[in-house]
Amino acid sequence: MSKIDYKQAGVDYSKIDPLKILAQQAAAATAGNLARHGLHEVAASRGESAYVVDCGEFYLASITECLGTKALVADATRALTGRTYYGQIAQDTIAMAINDIVTVGATPVSVHAYWAAGGSEWFHDAQRAKDLVDGWRAACDACGVAWGGGETPALAGVVANDRIDLAASCVGLVRPKSRLTLGDRLGPGDAIVLLASSGIHANGVSLARKLAERLPAGYGTKLPSGALFGEALLAPTVLYSPVTEALAAAGIVPHYCANITGHGWRKVMRHGNAFTYRFHTLPPVPEVLTFLARETGSDDRAAYGNLNMGAGFALFVAAADAERTAMVAERAGVRAFVAGVVEAGPKQVVLEPLRLTFGADDLHVRA
Amino acid sequence: MSKIDYKQAGVDYSKIDPLKILAQQAAAATAGNLARHGLHEVAASRGESAYVVDCGEFYLASITECLGTKALVADATRALTGRTYYGQIAQDTIAMAINDIVTVGATPVSVHAYWAAGGSEWFHDAQRAKDLVDGWRAACDACGVAWGGGETPALAGVVANDRIDLAASCVGLVRPKSRLTLGDRLGPGDAIVLLASSGIHANGVSLARKLAERLPAGYGTKLPSGALFGEALLAPTVLYSPVTEALAAAGIVPHYCANITGHGWRKVMRHGNAFTYRFHTLPPVPEVLTFLARETGSDDRAAYGNLNMGAGFALFVAAADAERTAMVAERAGVRAFVAGVVEAGPKQVVLEPLRLTFGADDLHVRA
Repeated sequence: MSKIDYKQAGVDYSKIDPLKILAQQAAAATAGNLARHGLHEVAASRGESAYVVDCGEFYLASITECLGTKALVADATRALTGRTYYGQIAQDTIAMAINDIVTVGATPVSVHAYWAAGGSEWFHDAQRAKDLVDGWRAACDACGVAWGGGETPALAGVVANDRIDLAASCVGLVRPKSRLTLGDRLGPGDAIVLLASSGIHANGVSLARKLAERLPAGYGTKLPSGALFGEALLAPTVLYSPVTEALAAAGIVPHYCANITGHGWRKVMRHGNAFTYRFHTLPPVPEVLTFLARETGSDDRAAYGNLNMGAGFALFVAAADAERTAMVAERAGVRAFVAGVVEAGPKQVVLEPLRLTFGADDLHVRA
Repeated sequence: MSKIDYKQAGVDYSKIDPLKILAQQAAAATAGNLARHGLHEVAASRGESAYVVDCGEFYLASITECLGTKALVADATRALTGRTYYGQIAQDTIAMAINDIVTVGATPVSVHAYWAAGGSEWFHDAQRAKDLVDGWRAACDACGVAWGGGETPALAGVVANDRIDLAASCVGLVRPKSRLTLGDRLGPGDAIVLLASSGIHANGVSLARKLAERLPAGYGTKLPSGALFGEALLAPTVLYSPVTEALAAAGIVPHYCANITGHGWRKVMRHGNAFTYRFHTLPPVPEVLTFLARETGSDDRAAYGNLNMGAGFALFVAAADAERTAMVAERAGVRAFVAGVVEAGPKQVVLEPLRLTFGADDLHVRA
């Protein structure tokens, strides 16, 4: 089959990014407003995965994240199997927010739901609505957060007919303040512990949808294991806050964290400084990602540069804490791999087993 | 012209509400999760406009709110005048979150933007993007909040082509804790001070859009003052946090607050207890609402029951504080009216100048 790339799949980052940079600059300029309330922002959190405000005795972290287009996969797969998959979709949406806010060292406290439907009819499908509610609640329970409320608007004309735009916002506290993880302690010699993903999570979904359109059996295509392509895509995103909370309880404060989402393994080098991230070990690749990469003609560079390829979250810890970090993660129910090291050197990600290197020019996530 | 009601306008609350109730019940069941972190929820905030968690030395408040369909009015009016109106739209979106979170006594601290477009092309319109960014920043500055970050996804297939789904989340602190306003102090004898609206704000927009479809000149229809219907609808929502912060600085703690949005003046009786809210004074009605009510064949019951009709926010204060509350609001730049009183009696809103009463059966906002 011919290759599919991200532009074909409907996401053109060169068009989004100019606005994003304008917005980042304007947002940064509002920091001074906090002085009116005796507060100040933690400037190092600008460009990180969650925003952090210094409130004196504690830090306040906040984030809003959206699911993206994964609900379209659920809708299409339901047509084949009759199951709604909105329980999984709910977990995916919460994971987008939770897995970002924990990168700064925050304990997630409360979550708000944003469920914007294309019309009131969307909410009339009782099974789908129940699955969404039950899955949302279960994910909150798994993360120890309170579901504070949310919005369920019907937005005919804005949201597409019979579709839903799902997002979650999350608030967290960094207490004690020594738990703050913004990367100032990251340095050469640190170990990189990777936490396993369950599949595609919610990034690379546009590519998967494009592939489904091309496959004769679409989402009903059987993977080698017998699983349906659609169902394999819908394995819910792993929630990493049980791991970060267990690490805090064990007295391990990571030097940095990266949630591996869009830009795949290029996200490993999101820290502002120049370091070389060298991996000697790669986690097993979930079957659905091997299939997706092969069928879209993606080479290792394209696959690891855009998909998580088995690694959903990276913890950067003192070398002496590496093995214990992996053990704590495994006890919290997530497979973990002591996979690499941070070195002095140019900003790059080196995947030794694949003889593959991503340079600094491959990632632009900051203004 | 024949009447237009809300069902015709695409919002069917009877279809949304069953899911909403299911979600409210599931959300309430997650409260116990906070105990893991030594926190607990303020149960009285369930069903109020923002969620409140007791963090010991302070309360943490949070909210996510969406704009609704008002951007469609901007898009259509732009086709007539060439102006984008996304600066106003930005303020509307922030107002949805800010005006809710201040009802519980919180100082808004930070805001996240959620701008989900129907495709990357949306962000390529430089003027519109700049107006959105500039308006968002200006509204943050007006409210003294930091713009912490946000999401700008391109969601082809989920969000309608060339449209944008706009939402805002907000985090606030209630410090000192005595500022918490959840209505436990509300009682007979309290005065009701109404804060002026600027126009339709962001509720009743579906009705206005339906009307525009029917008018021969659509959004280009001239109001008696000469203003275009579309432009009048796009007067940005008043931001009320400057008033609530000024009241705190003046030592006035309201007994309760209600942001008057969907359900219009019926929202005045959103407090859980039974009281009679009697109004002797009604604020002037913005021209666009007079026009909308007349042209849609809405009588006073329909108009005041669904639109703000000049009152964007209600402050319930001790009678002795009423005049000073209005003065503080006016000094903060918002017209204010000492308009009514809270009385012992059945749950109802009585508009004496109109001989109009809304009973408890007219409002269902809680599970």
